[in-house]
Amino acid sequence: MLVVMETSASPEMVRQVCLEIEKMGLTAHAMPGAQRTAIGVTGNKARVDSDRILTLAGVRDIIHVTKPYKLVSREFVPENSVIDVDGIPIGGREFIVIAGPCSVESREQTLAVAQAVAKHGAKILRGGAFKPRTSPYSFQGLGQDGLKILAEARQQTGLRIVTEAIDTDTVEMVADYADIVQIGARNMQNYTLLRKAGRLSKPILLKRGLSATLEELLMAAEYIMSEGNTKVILCERGVRTFADHTRNTLDLSAIPFVKRMSHLPIISDPSHGTGRKDKVLPLSRASIAVGADGIMVEVHNKPEEALSDGAQAITPEDFARLMDDMRKLAPVLERDVP
Amino acid sequence: MLVVMETSASPEMVRQVCLEIEKMGLTAHAMPGAQRTAIGVTGNKARVDSDRILTLAGVRDIIHVTKPYKLVSREFVPENSVIDVDGIPIGGREFIVIAGPCSVESREQTLAVAQAVAKHGAKILRGGAFKPRTSPYSFQGLGQDGLKILAEARQQTGLRIVTEAIDTDTVEMVADYADIVQIGARNMQNYTLLRKAGRLSKPILLKRGLSATLEELLMAAEYIMSEGNTKVILCERGVRTFADHTRNTLDLSAIPFVKRMSHLPIISDPSHGTGRKDKVLPLSRASIAVGADGIMVEVHNKPEEALSDGAQAITPEDFARLMDDMRKLAPVLERDVP
Amino acid sequence: MLVVMETSASPEMVRQVCLEIEKMGLTAHAMPGAQRTAIGVTGNKARVDSDRILTLAGVRDIIHVTKPYKLVSREFVPENSVIDVDGIPIGGREFIVIAGPCSVESREQTLAVAQAVAKHGAKILRGGAFKPRTSPYSFQGLGQDGLKILAEARQQTGLRIVTEAIDTDTVEMVADYADIVQIGARNMQNYTLLRKAGRLSKPILLKRGLSATLEELLMAAEYIMSEGNTKVILCERGVRTFADHTRNTLDLSAIPFVKRMSHLPIISDPSHGTGRKDKVLPLSRASIAVGADGIMVEVHNKPEEALSDGAQAITPEDFARLMDDMRKLAPVLERDVP
Amino acid sequence: MLVVMETSASPEMVRQVCLEIEKMGLTAHAMPGAQRTAIGVTGNKARVDSDRILTLAGVRDIIHVTKPYKLVSREFVPENSVIDVDGIPIGGREFIVIAGPCSVESREQTLAVAQAVAKHGAKILRGGAFKPRTSPYSFQGLGQDGLKILAEARQQTGLRIVTEAIDTDTVEMVADYADIVQIGARNMQNYTLLRKAGRLSKPILLKRGLSATLEELLMAAEYIMSEGNTKVILCERGVRTFADHTRNTLDLSAIPFVKRMSHLPIISDPSHGTGRKDKVLPLSRASIAVGADGIMVEVHNKPEEALSDGAQAITPEDFARLMDDMRKLAPVLERDVP
Repeated sequence: MLVVMETSASPEMVRQVCLEIEKMGLTAHAMPGAQRTAIGVTGNKARVDSDRILTLAGVRDIIHVTKPYKLVSREFVPENSVIDVDGIPIGGREFIVIAGPCSVESREQTLAVAQAVAKHGAKILRGGAFKPRTSPYSFQGLGQDGLKILAEARQQTGLRIVTEAIDTDTVEMVADYADIVQIGARNMQNYTLLRKAGRLSKPILLKRGLSATLEELLMAAEYIMSEGNTKVILCERGVRTFADHTRNTLDLSAIPFVKRMSHLPIISDPSHGTGRKDKVLPLSRASIAVGADGIMVEVHNKPEEALSDGAQAITPEDFARLMDDMRKLAPVLERDVP
Repeated sequence: MLVVMETSASPEMVRQVCLEIEKMGLTAHAMPGAQRTAIGVTGNKARVDSDRILTLAGVRDIIHVTKPYKLVSREFVPENSVIDVDGIPIGGREFIVIAGPCSVESREQTLAVAQAVAKHGAKILRGGAFKPRTSPYSFQGLGQDGLKILAEARQQTGLRIVTEAIDTDTVEMVADYADIVQIGARNMQNYTLLRKAGRLSKPILLKRGLSATLEELLMAAEYIMSEGNTKVILCERGVRTFADHTRNTLDLSAIPFVKRMSHLPIISDPSHGTGRKDKVLPLSRASIAVGADGIMVEVHNKPEEALSDGAQAITPEDFARLMDDMRKLAPVLERDVP
Repeated sequence: MLVVMETSASPEMVRQVCLEIEKMGLTAHAMPGAQRTAIGVTGNKARVDSDRILTLAGVRDIIHVTKPYKLVSREFVPENSVIDVDGIPIGGREFIVIAGPCSVESREQTLAVAQAVAKHGAKILRGGAFKPRTSPYSFQGLGQDGLKILAEARQQTGLRIVTEAIDTDTVEMVADYADIVQIGARNMQNYTLLRKAGRLSKPILLKRGLSATLEELLMAAEYIMSEGNTKVILCERGVRTFADHTRNTLDLSAIPFVKRMSHLPIISDPSHGTGRKDKVLPLSRASIAVGADGIMVEVHNKPEEALSDGAQAITPEDFARLMDDMRKLAPVLERDVP
Repeated sequence: MLVVMETSASPEMVRQVCLEIEKMGLTAHAMPGAQRTAIGVTGNKARVDSDRILTLAGVRDIIHVTKPYKLVSREFVPENSVIDVDGIPIGGREFIVIAGPCSVESREQTLAVAQAVAKHGAKILRGGAFKPRTSPYSFQGLGQDGLKILAEARQQTGLRIVTEAIDTDTVEMVADYADIVQIGARNMQNYTLLRKAGRLSKPILLKRGLSATLEELLMAAEYIMSEGNTKVILCERGVRTFADHTRNTLDLSAIPFVKRMSHLPIISDPSHGTGRKDKVLPLSRASIAVGADGIMVEVHNKPEEALSDGAQAITPEDFARLMDDMRKLAPVLERDVP
């Protein structure tokens, strides 16, 4: 940590800051400069809680050097973590494709989509039983009935299941049915939910919030891991910017950044990341090329009848083409797509 | 609603879209143009769920005209709503100042700050007993003990109490102690929490999310109101942008916009909105000038010992000056600050 | 400056970085920590050009402490600069109102608006003769004919004139007619134009770019000042964010920030800052309250016939009310509005 | 175009708006709805200038349907434009790699980098002779001497040359030496420069501005094309967002969007798009995968001695690996990399 003093700070103010730092059990290194004095701080094992120092007289700014997360960091676990999803590995050489409808709308629709995506090579079925919707008047999902339909789809197709838990009331029920419990972008900083997810035995798919920095994403994962659940899969799904040609801006640089800072796997969601079905295929190709461990895409057998997000769902035929592209690209990128 | 067709759309495609619209019980008005056809849609009472149409062949885009919210809209309630907080009116001529520490840290600190802000004219005490923190290793609040301290401060000072509920597990406990239950920025789209808040009898202070549009803020309020609780107070607290000279960018244009679109009161939080104590006073003046119904500011008796957000808390002396400024500005702006 | 090493950096790498720093004539202070080593750098008079160090083996990051600007900084000139505009002071106690049409459209329109705003208390007339337009097919301004009309308006009303120069070809011609030469948001980093403006004798009104940080705004002012023209007036005019209820997001916290870091005056432009005429009045009140040295607003006698930006122009009647508000607020804020 | 009336608008107000539309030679289609009236407008050949209507009584909003650009649009030219750069085609099946130093620093450095990138398969050499720098005190480029060095590098290596023109004073000189004239992000809306570029015979590389929408990018290209130069190559180079893990956020969805809306070629710049050398390789792979017609990357033989942007330049060895990756990916993506 570095404490930057005002140019007008007196030697006494510098001395007081050094004293305060020493009181915290740390070492202060005053560096008087031509314009101002800076004070280096060493001896800390984790990030120093600096609010206290920031309010001392003469202090202009605090600059942190140590990252605030630990369990998620690559420094803590140097090797890639490979998360086992009931026999399906995420984070290894295999590139995992998760596909399915935005919402579980009916048994027929879900089974039809599940069979289609299984046939073309998806390993995991996505589908929302509990839906976070901007409007209280929109379709909110089938709830437990939806979970049962997903379980039936698993039995019929062998696909694993990922579905979202939107609150602490239902997260355990979701975990009873799902192979992976999803925490959505809107809940990325719902800390009570994160903690509860951290006490489950199922893997967690944690989506980046709409305006979350990657440090905040990693801190949200740290919440889960600090409760004991180390099976966390991260997901880049687009962030909110001024750009208006897509619903969100898919930030693919997040993938190599997370790979460098953390041992956790990270996948990409080009469906939510763009919100436009004609962008899903090119951004899926870009996702495998940039180093993602998998993708999650929305597929609907009849997009024109979808109860939510029809505009971003692709058809099973488009999905077949997408899988073809993934299979062609994988070997070049030292990935497997079975 | 307006459906915009591709330039390449055939007359048959236009006919199909019109048919689909009629099936929904609405009226379609095809308008063939030089470049493309647009189809006007009328007859809807609320916003049409357009996902279905967006996926029909030849459709390029859908443009909504009707706002998706109802109970919060000024068209629904033309007069300003004045929320009664146990005798304190929010949304009327009186400009309300809410002040207090970021966190309830101890009985001594809370009572000291409460007495100071009461003395200078605050009407409502703020202070977090449950704290949403980015890091699982940071101070998370005193919980119920904090609520009890707040209740004692109310008894000693006559101040009303606003404090945050961070989850559905504790929101009822918070409502037992608080006069206003706060829903924080990170929970603005925690719909289960919003619905539960909608079934409380206490007023709700709903803060804008870090990257929420105002339509989303109003929809979040609609969630609360749709459950029966009409006592919603909105709060602009800064949004996340590229700008790096403040922690967030306080978007003061939100105040007149909300005033135009909705009957609900809205206040401003210059402490979180800027994250810098030296910006609190000027942005408080700007907030009353732009038409806010009140402000919420962080005050700490010993900012240098604050356990959270010390960098944005002002001292009781600064607060006295702030109240002076509010009192001088109020009459010019047709406001009262008692 | 602080150089942060990777945790994996070897002592030899640290040594090399220190050597490189010493070669630059600076002093290196290595601070070995529990997790990593940081190296403090002192002895620099201006910001160090750090690109070279950033590429050395083992270096993770560079953190600057010294601000990169000098002539614009308050440390360089502790007192507020008051810019004299042919007898009108900007940056002193007087709050200056600049008003006029977006574009000079005709002699009649310009004189009518000029007389109206002069009557109600504006001191400076704005109006574009050269217009930067997004589309090559939109009205581009009357050019020199427009400048002549502005000069006639000055003679008739006594108002000073501010008008935009959009390129180096015409900036001198603009300076011949104008009392203040405006550099628009799109040209904030047109360095050739900035340098040429720095060699003029007229004051320059420099508008913040649509996604410019305040450091970049101050650096753009430094370009002008480094050529010898110290008469620079800054202008906050809204930045581009995800928010869609206004055309831009007026960042009023920029005003107290610039006031703290720089001695230069800064005004606010609520017309471009919001793009909606019904937001101009409340944001003008907020601008004077937050500490701006003036405002610039668009007024049109017949907004429905305006050739550009009609949606944000207010009428002379609205302007009269705006001036009333400014006059009522000024004394409370220790400002004068004659 | 659609005109949306206020719910409170009277029939007379609707009639006035229709009259005004008819006066413009267009056809008005009033559509009275349950909540409000909307008025469809047809008959326009280009986008209607709607400012006038927006100011009429009772008008709430205007919604445009027609895109404001023409020459750049795919509707105008259905086939991909392939730009010939002295024998090198951009926009066809061949994926073009542009590489070189950020700045031309010396003859030795430029020739060394040029030979290295030519050897590994780059077709075009990049390098700035005129540098737009945030600080007036930073290295501003070698100017005409730099152009001469580039010309010598072309002669020695056969590489074509792209270099930036930063103002109208020097753009013709740049065009004398360069095979492609670059207009940088900061100048994307420098309309005088765009028009002058439109009168050159050399191809123009137009970079997206830091906060430019894609509509604005296409309009900037329209400026160039409207002067007669149809040889425009677009470039996505990252936009400014809240994200802080990269210098900019590379918005790869821009590539398929531009491909859909326009016939012009578009390339990607992962060096400026991320600002971090370790992100260049993964984002280059993502760029070819998403459908870009080429990439532009910074390569420096001694990054640690670079006078500008050393942090984002890769070494010739990294570049060789990058080209290997492009060659492996190209056939799968129906591209050629010779």
